[in-house]
Amino acid sequence: MSAFYPYATLTYERCEQLALFSQDSSCMDRRYLSKEHQQTNHQVMLWMQAAGMRTWQDEAGNQWGALTSSKPDSPTLVLGSHLDTVPNGGKYDGILGVLLPISLVQYLQDTEQSLPFNLQIVGFGDEEGTRFGATLLGSRAVAGTWQENWSALVDADDIGLPQAMRNFGLDINKIRNCSREQAIDAFVEIHIEQGPVLEANNLAVGVVSAIAGARRFKCTLTGFAGHAGTVPMHMRQDALAGAAEMILAIEALAKVHQVVATVGKLTCLSGATNVISGKTEFSIDIRSENDAQRDIAFAAIEQSIQAIAHNRNLTLQICQTHSANAVLCDEALQNKLTQAIVRHGIRPFALASGAGHDTMAMANICPVGMLFMRCEKGISHHPAEAIRTDDVEQTLAVLNHFMQTFHIPKQT
Amino acid sequence: MSAFYPYATLTYERCEQLALFSQDSSCMDRRYLSKEHQQTNHQVMLWMQAAGMRTWQDEAGNQWGALTSSKPDSPTLVLGSHLDTVPNGGKYDGILGVLLPISLVQYLQDTEQSLPFNLQIVGFGDEEGTRFGATLLGSRAVAGTWQENWSALVDADDIGLPQAMRNFGLDINKIRNCSREQAIDAFVEIHIEQGPVLEANNLAVGVVSAIAGARRFKCTLTGFAGHAGTVPMHMRQDALAGAAEMILAIEALAKVHQVVATVGKLTCLSGATNVISGKTEFSIDIRSENDAQRDIAFAAIEQSIQAIAHNRNLTLQICQTHSANAVLCDEALQNKLTQAIVRHGIRPFALASGAGHDTMAMANICPVGMLFMRCEKGISHHPAEAIRTDDVEQTLAVLNHFMQTFHIPKQT
Repeated sequence: MSAFYPYATLTYERCEQLALFSQDSSCMDRRYLSKEHQQTNHQVMLWMQAAGMRTWQDEAGNQWGALTSSKPDSPTLVLGSHLDTVPNGGKYDGILGVLLPISLVQYLQDTEQSLPFNLQIVGFGDEEGTRFGATLLGSRAVAGTWQENWSALVDADDIGLPQAMRNFGLDINKIRNCSREQAIDAFVEIHIEQGPVLEANNLAVGVVSAIAGARRFKCTLTGFAGHAGTVPMHMRQDALAGAAEMILAIEALAKVHQVVATVGKLTCLSGATNVISGKTEFSIDIRSENDAQRDIAFAAIEQSIQAIAHNRNLTLQICQTHSANAVLCDEALQNKLTQAIVRHGIRPFALASGAGHDTMAMANICPVGMLFMRCEKGISHHPAEAIRTDDVEQTLAVLNHFMQTFHIPKQT
Repeated sequence: MSAFYPYATLTYERCEQLALFSQDSSCMDRRYLSKEHQQTNHQVMLWMQAAGMRTWQDEAGNQWGALTSSKPDSPTLVLGSHLDTVPNGGKYDGILGVLLPISLVQYLQDTEQSLPFNLQIVGFGDEEGTRFGATLLGSRAVAGTWQENWSALVDADDIGLPQAMRNFGLDINKIRNCSREQAIDAFVEIHIEQGPVLEANNLAVGVVSAIAGARRFKCTLTGFAGHAGTVPMHMRQDALAGAAEMILAIEALAKVHQVVATVGKLTCLSGATNVISGKTEFSIDIRSENDAQRDIAFAAIEQSIQAIAHNRNLTLQICQTHSANAVLCDEALQNKLTQAIVRHGIRPFALASGAGHDTMAMANICPVGMLFMRCEKGISHHPAEAIRTDDVEQTLAVLNHFMQTFHIPKQT
């Protein structure tokens, strides 16, 4: 049991406590600018203050805490993640990355240590984008990439974003005040992996090399509907069988090109047991930390599935619905995180993030780094999301090493 | 242009006319015991009478016409099919097999010919089973295989079958009166093929060898849902990718075993673009005119898809939802239909029916035969269902040859 054990327990218990602020009593659901968001910010503020931090809430509803260095003109490191959740989500996705740093600051205060730089912790109000459709509203406000047309966004109850902000006590016209360009020298996010790689490698933590870029497509495959009993196998134009062949091609080519590609949604239109599919729609989601590799993989997939369509006398339409490039983590920050891991006696391990994070937005204004913590079976966005207290303990120790040894260069 | 040309035109026009009796003005939809069923029976009765037939409606709502032979104790041939349609159906499926024989009787009357046997024509009230779920209600009443538990059937408006029969002027308690066991010596059904085989062979008609037996299954494939970005390809338990591999195996094995097998319905549960499928359900429909061949094919499919599930670390549950054995057409009737086709100068061609027909029910009480007529592109159960008048003309000629030359043995 290390000095960080009580702070790990504290972090874990606080995650449990924040889970009570849910707009749905049957599951975890905390959306941007909700009453529960307000309750959460208030609670996080109290914990920040207990750890000796000065606190404020910005015009985007992000909760901040600051520990100012005794050295004047010190650089500023920001640690943080998001406080919102998806509907029926987990207790740690995002939340851990806010509460764990607060626990470390609490440890620093309890052990009367100071830092040679300014430390700030942020709890972003929106990362998941569940309420208004657009994602990363909180971190993009901070990164100065808030979009003017977001004023037109409405939620499921037809409440517009400007009105929701007013209800929360915020003024959308002052959103530019959130921007922290040139005021942050480094951003580091701690987050559960949301995948099974660290667990499979028996590791508590890993350093994120990049956040994968993603492209998404909607494919519409048209054949010819027919009676399941009357059309011989060789005369069929079966859109579902064609889609099946394409799914296997996508899977195989993703492996060849070392990317991840997923068909997660498939609709067999007017499907019936005794009807040969005339039209089938499916999605493709393809990701890589290397944009060129991802695009080469997609080109190979496109060529392959068009050939399948041709061979089966089907028509395939492919429509891109989303495209975002990869975000690379800063090499110096990666090295320092790796050194902290080694110093703590853990085998260093680098991995890309397949999921998007606030770090993507923050990369717009400063060098960024991410530390992944193992979660059980890689489950996330689900009530079964689970972490181990001893992993929190190790992550606290690693983060402490990182902060004790790292001198952040002041951005110019 | 043959002597049958005006009777082909008559048949075609009457199909158009009956299409007006639809409970949905935007499409063809005529269900059992509806007002439109009543209107149809009345119109068919008038046409039967015009052709010199004695008419009656039985207690199941089937419309009958009879042309009694001058020879006493003659055997009885019944020609017929069904007068109901599926929702958004076509104008010829079933209907042609009632109206074409009436036109032939009209021809016999116009040309003052008589037959050496009793001829009856029946328009069954229900074959599709759209209103009450159970199929072949009309022909199964005639075949004496009406099920007592059908009294509990209700339609979409919660009207029970007994009440619907009362509203139609029928008494379900007298349903046994419909049974024609030992009163019919042969049943021959003319029907559009509902498949593309005759068209591909450039033939107007073909002799049905058997009606395929079918087995249907519901398959539930369980894997493990995951984030499309964070789970590496080799660590996935992707239920949809597993289903895709199974669909291709089913397709390939159907070809190997010379059966038809179809996956017509697939549901990717809680499917989303960025989520790896955790559960996928799909149907299998497998048919053959040879039950043993069908069962061997299914056993091969079952072994193959269970192996796929095992290799992918998925769980596969297979549940049989339907099973019906093949019905063989009577060899003597097949031969006589083939001779009639040859006599008319058409290349004889035999094919199995992959779809179910009233003939299946009638096989319970007498030798049965079926003659398929070409339909455009094999389309059926769809507004695009189409036939050619010259095909009707040829079918009339073939049927005339059949009736002129065939002496039906009286059943003992």
